Amino acid sequence: MGLLNFAFDVKASDLLGRVGSLTVGRKQVETPCLFPVIHPVRQDISPGELKRMGFSGLMTNSLILYARRRDEAVRKGIHGLLDFEGVFMTDSGGYQVLEYGDVDVGYGEIARFQSEIGSELAVTLDRPTGFSTSRAYARETMRYSLKNALATIDEYGTSETVWLGPIQGGLFPDLLQGSAKGLLGAGFRFLALGSPTQVMENYRFADLVRMILASRRVVPYPVPLHLFGAGHPLTMAFSVALGCDTFDSASYVLFARSGRYMTERGIQRLDQMSYLPCSCPSCNSTGLRELREMESAERTRLLSLHNLYQLKTEVANCKQAIVEGRLWDLVEERAASHPRVMDAFRVMAENAELLEDGTPALKDRGLLLRGDLDELRPELRTSRARLYAAARRGKRKSLVLLGDEPLTLTYSGQKRPSAKFGGHDLYRVHPCLGAYPAELDFVYPFTQTITVSTTSAVSETRKNARKALKRLGYRSVSFSAAALHQPSEERRRGHRPPRRVMAYSATTPATRPPRSRPRQKVRGPSPPSSSARSR
Amino acid sequence: MGLLNFAFDVKASDLLGRVGSLTVGRKQVETPCLFPVIHPVRQDISPGELKRMGFSGLMTNSLILYARRRDEAVRKGIHGLLDFEGVFMTDSGGYQVLEYGDVDVGYGEIARFQSEIGSELAVTLDRPTGFSTSRAYARETMRYSLKNALATIDEYGTSETVWLGPIQGGLFPDLLQGSAKGLLGAGFRFLALGSPTQVMENYRFADLVRMILASRRVVPYPVPLHLFGAGHPLTMAFSVALGCDTFDSASYVLFARSGRYMTERGIQRLDQMSYLPCSCPSCNSTGLRELREMESAERTRLLSLHNLYQLKTEVANCKQAIVEGRLWDLVEERAASHPRVMDAFRVMAENAELLEDGTPALKDRGLLLRGDLDELRPELRTSRARLYAAARRGKRKSLVLLGDEPLTLTYSGQKRPSAKFGGHDLYRVHPCLGAYPAELDFVYPFTQTITVSTTSAVSETRKNARKALKRLGYRSVSFSAAALHQPSEERRRGHRPPRRVMAYSATTPATRPPRSRPRQKVRGPSPPSSSARSR
Repeated sequence: MGLLNFAFDVKASDLLGRVGSLTVGRKQVETPCLFPVIHPVRQDISPGELKRMGFSGLMTNSLILYARRRDEAVRKGIHGLLDFEGVFMTDSGGYQVLEYGDVDVGYGEIARFQSEIGSELAVTLDRPTGFSTSRAYARETMRYSLKNALATIDEYGTSETVWLGPIQGGLFPDLLQGSAKGLLGAGFRFLALGSPTQVMENYRFADLVRMILASRRVVPYPVPLHLFGAGHPLTMAFSVALGCDTFDSASYVLFARSGRYMTERGIQRLDQMSYLPCSCPSCNSTGLRELREMESAERTRLLSLHNLYQLKTEVANCKQAIVEGRLWDLVEERAASHPRVMDAFRVMAENAELLEDGTPALKDRGLLLRGDLDELRPELRTSRARLYAAARRGKRKSLVLLGDEPLTLTYSGQKRPSAKFGGHDLYRVHPCLGAYPAELDFVYPFTQTITVSTTSAVSETRKNARKALKRLGYRSVSFSAAALHQPSEERRRGHRPPRRVMAYSATTPATRPPRSRPRQKVRGPSPPSSSARSR
Repeated sequence: MGLLNFAFDVKASDLLGRVGSLTVGRKQVETPCLFPVIHPVRQDISPGELKRMGFSGLMTNSLILYARRRDEAVRKGIHGLLDFEGVFMTDSGGYQVLEYGDVDVGYGEIARFQSEIGSELAVTLDRPTGFSTSRAYARETMRYSLKNALATIDEYGTSETVWLGPIQGGLFPDLLQGSAKGLLGAGFRFLALGSPTQVMENYRFADLVRMILASRRVVPYPVPLHLFGAGHPLTMAFSVALGCDTFDSASYVLFARSGRYMTERGIQRLDQMSYLPCSCPSCNSTGLRELREMESAERTRLLSLHNLYQLKTEVANCKQAIVEGRLWDLVEERAASHPRVMDAFRVMAENAELLEDGTPALKDRGLLLRGDLDELRPELRTSRARLYAAARRGKRKSLVLLGDEPLTLTYSGQKRPSAKFGGHDLYRVHPCLGAYPAELDFVYPFTQTITVSTTSAVSETRKNARKALKRLGYRSVSFSAAALHQPSEERRRGHRPPRRVMAYSATTPATRPPRSRPRQKVRGPSPPSSSARSR
């Protein structure tokens, strides 16, 4: 288990994504972190080059090493053998067992070997469920993997190695969750979600989201989660947003071998490209024609390097987005690149309640709202929930103000308008945020939010606002078109009494607001009858 | 005019964007092309460096040169003076006149000077309208600019220089169009749309789209269009899509001076960044902290270089997108990065009829549909129009098939299903493409299109399909849930008779299809009464 060796500290967080520090013994890697997979015997890109590019951890396969260079590996240690001083993660070889049939190795043998060669992070011997399999098979692989994991931690839990517990179960949420719970119960503090590769190869990104969500629902927030074999440039952002902290992938070289070129917008086939939209050292060193015509090994090398730079950039994009609180935005931008990624984003958005935990209640920067799914953002959910929880349950009638420019609405003459005005409580209606007390005008995120100009949802929002306010106990709700609204230029000139006053529905009786002369037409529907229920 | 010197050949086209070749004398530049602006006296990045980075044209200000290095410039020529053998575009200095007050120079003086120094592409002396000005002022600037342009071409039209005619008029479409028409009438064959800089600085991208659209409506397709001062990374894709071919901008260095870092997702402030998500030579040569702490001139230099690499990459993205027919997709991806760009995309989509001219009727690659605005794509408009124009006006009842997986629907047993089946014409309903005769299953874009899984629009589409089919003369339309649908695995095994047959509405009488046993529930609405009109 090596628990003394191991720590995971979250430094910044957004959605379920986090910038963290993974400490393994005296080494650290910053997460989210991609561990490029290298072949233990021959590499297209050397470990030294990967180090110089800024990769602080590598993934390699202990089974191949065990089969081919066992003694040498034990003698030199994996760091000496492969000449890399960073963190090594080693896979148990379960994938190879799956692919090449049973290899004559037991969980204990391969676990001891991983410890002996000094691997910092090691996966217990598992059997990947893969994709599109029967439930019975999925259950069998899950049980086999779990049994090995428990036995391994029992026998080798005290070694220096930190063991990753492999979550298997394929597309079956209950199996994934049973797997994760079993591993957590046995003391694993770093889990790894298995078998997404085929799911990703089939562009079933929405299924991948469901798999990660199912796992994250039972894996506590402080426990880091590894995602096996996830090196597709379009999946990085949403995987990070759903709480995957580390990744390994050989995609950079596998794609390179088949002439595939990664961009932040997807995978391109080199033979369908006319331009290289990249300025990485690899792309700067060559032209497209040159690249196509060069000898295959050299092309694979240059494409591998390009793909690695691309993945590295995407990891940096994710980190930057987390730090500035714009990870949702990054995911949404990637979603625009392919309908299947949009599907994945939709599944994520529909489960956004799970993302609230990691999302700061206050952010430095405003929200950018450009699509329907943005209304499901955790910041908005949280704000609305806080708002209604804290709202006074008024006895007064409320007057809801709907300005023509809801974002620049201010009550001139007073910095924070009183919520009571002529016997009414004042609310504003934001096209996305819904109704909020006017005195929150300067509170995040009510004025810091930028939305698209076409707020086709306004009438819907108005209906919802009415409903929500009814629930707060207001008996009557009226709407005003542009009340108390002063253009910002005028506001800057100093305190002046409001020139425009709100209009109010004819059915709102008594207590006229001071200085009132209805100048604006009442645009909203007339207040509903008193039969409206209050909760 | 230098018309003998000048040609513009379109090599590939998508939307109104084109990859073209601009020939000026013996020099060529490939468009879309960005001309970085350099100061004629002192440069942060030297012309030689810009050449090595791959920029084939530069923009500089002839008025400053005229004021400060007149004799030297005439003696050495601009290429000798600035040591750059590519194409020079020179601005007349109108912007400076605006900014620093009237400079004592007439249209003729500055035109002659531009010719004398050997500028290949030169702008006639204009007065930029700018932003947020009165109509009267906009009209005045437009008229002044047009008058100078006509006088210049009259006197200097036979010089070696190719004259760009500046379109002014700000946000007023009729003024822009009057301006463009006047220039075209006078013989200008390269126009330049003025004053977007302030519009862009205020993130009023939708207004920029309206300005370009207004211009493109009167500027014929073969005439290239320059967009002044447009170096914002978020505006490049839609500007290209709307038919802007060349750009000039000093944004790379202006942003750099204020510590701003371009990404394909927008502008970042360096002091708000924690990571550098880029692998360009500039970013590879330094770390973020180092960059922040270095001396200001050196930081400006490195940031300028980074910004230039970023812009160059975006130009390559545009070109690649045009060649592969995915320019719409690129614009949509950029739209996801900011609500104001989404606004711009919406205005573009709502005017998509203008984009049909440049969009190929057949594309190599399928359409990716991920958002509501995608339904306005010119490819879909064109397909629908062709379809309904060519459709037989049947006397039969039609049977519309709505499969659960509309994209993989095939009629097994026959490669191309007959459109007649049991006396009905068969149609499929695609969630975005609408109703189409089933025999078009293998015709672009009906099966090559990938949509998001959540086709919330299906019921709407069904309603529209019914309406469209009525218009074709069908008296009755029925719907089937998954008729004639065979999973693709089964299909591959060979010719077998369809196992599932369509269901049809109870109100559809007579001519039962062969082998029919209604197994699927009829999901659609019952056919409307015979009162439905046909056109």
